[in-house]
Amino acid sequence: MDIKTYLKDKAALVDAALDRYLPGADTLPEKLHQSMRYSVMAGGKRVRPILLLASCNAVGGDEAAALPAACALEMIHTYSLIHDDLPAMDDDDFRRGRPTNHKVYGEATAILAGDALLTEAFELLSDPEINREVSAETLLRVSHIIARFAGSTGMVGGQVVDMESEGKEIDFPTLEYIHTRKTGALMLASVQCGALLGGADEQAFAALTRYGSAAGLAFQVADDILNVISTSETLGKTAGSDAVRGKATYPALIGLDASRGRARELKEMAIAALDPLGEKAEPLRAIARFIVERSS
Amino acid sequence: MDIKTYLKDKAALVDAALDRYLPGADTLPEKLHQSMRYSVMAGGKRVRPILLLASCNAVGGDEAAALPAACALEMIHTYSLIHDDLPAMDDDDFRRGRPTNHKVYGEATAILAGDALLTEAFELLSDPEINREVSAETLLRVSHIIARFAGSTGMVGGQVVDMESEGKEIDFPTLEYIHTRKTGALMLASVQCGALLGGADEQAFAALTRYGSAAGLAFQVADDILNVISTSETLGKTAGSDAVRGKATYPALIGLDASRGRARELKEMAIAALDPLGEKAEPLRAIARFIVERSS
Repeated sequence: MDIKTYLKDKAALVDAALDRYLPGADTLPEKLHQSMRYSVMAGGKRVRPILLLASCNAVGGDEAAALPAACALEMIHTYSLIHDDLPAMDDDDFRRGRPTNHKVYGEATAILAGDALLTEAFELLSDPEINREVSAETLLRVSHIIARFAGSTGMVGGQVVDMESEGKEIDFPTLEYIHTRKTGALMLASVQCGALLGGADEQAFAALTRYGSAAGLAFQVADDILNVISTSETLGKTAGSDAVRGKATYPALIGLDASRGRARELKEMAIAALDPLGEKAEPLRAIARFIVERSS
Repeated sequence: MDIKTYLKDKAALVDAALDRYLPGADTLPEKLHQSMRYSVMAGGKRVRPILLLASCNAVGGDEAAALPAACALEMIHTYSLIHDDLPAMDDDDFRRGRPTNHKVYGEATAILAGDALLTEAFELLSDPEINREVSAETLLRVSHIIARFAGSTGMVGGQVVDMESEGKEIDFPTLEYIHTRKTGALMLASVQCGALLGGADEQAFAALTRYGSAAGLAFQVADDILNVISTSETLGKTAGSDAVRGKATYPALIGLDASRGRARELKEMAIAALDPLGEKAEPLRAIARFIVERSS
């Protein structure tokens, strides 16, 4: 399969759905909704929603029923980027090749736009009209998975430990703690929610969980590598910024070659986990390869 | 009935449940969980959770089934206070008589503690163990109400317009826009969720909706009045701060006497709305009186 075309097509599907689900730029308060849309519609890679849709397909599910949850995950990812970029946090000026949200709308609105996107995600997940085809039980399980992985022992927890570790020598377990939570948690949530919305049985759910854990970590290792080897132009944000900031990364801790080895190993683990799922999981295999090969 | 004893007893019930539902102070990352607990357990009046429990009781429902949603609302209220107090927002040093969250834990942790509390609220609402006695359909409806009233066209929207209005001359409709959203939205959500969790029929739900709208606005008018007439000591935060900041308030716009008149009028509307509910709604009537009489 042609993974680049696949990713482009699915991203377009997600973009159109996000545009539909987000309140319009002329909804009051206009500045808030413009700020929310500015960051969501900035053209991210939509990795998490695509993983969700591909996981739903991998167990024979209907992608349409999974689209609201896919968009909810992208909203949560986007809120986390807006907050991470704030002066009190990473203090970044550029994101996805454009000025960060607080640079355009000011700090207060950026904080509130993040808050509103996080809230909007759960509104979308519980909207009875939009989710007509999905049972309340499934929606509630999906909500619970997303909240758990996005919260204080998941993504937010990872961000806290990441911040606390800046400029400090940290060990490998701490690095994996940060990575499995800060990035890995939402990736695993995507895969598990896609599985549930697709009607996965226990065996398929377990296989996809193994896939999601490995692919999520592989993505972050690859991201660390890219931050070292890319230029700011290709990255859309400041290259080499992790090193400047004394951020805990794989290359900093185990070197570039060993990091690439770890990324390849995680990719193999992810692909192997999909064995029980056969042909329908082919996009997920291609995504795992694509994630890692970006950085090799 | 003795409203002060009632409020004290219910607040104790909510405090104990919050303590149970929040991750422990020794859960990793410890600083994050300590920061979350610092603000939640600071001893607020628990107005929203008590409104929720009282609304559940008013339609003959079982309070125990409503306790998780009550705590979720308090977590959302607390996150909004933490974020409102940030330097980029209202820049407040004191809240509930203690230093604000960012003064103790730093800005970055305060932002993340707010994010985590908002997320935790939806985790609690979707937890299958904790909500064993409530149907998935009801929980989903409760989730949707809370997300809608807390989001960009509800509480967050009200905060945005409030900020934008600082130091500007605003008209009465704008003031009511801010108040119905910034405070009123979560109060109405509390009442509606209590009604749903208590098994309200359509007529009771409509009556409680009228009550919640009026009582929520009455609460904010009373709060505006209190900010003018109190000392910092009794208020637990800086008295007169609204005026200093050029905040839109009832007394600033229509004067103290007319504000008191409006508060009394809203109280009467709230109480009249409860007519169809009879004796079981007595605590809700007493709460409406108490809210307004604090400020008279």
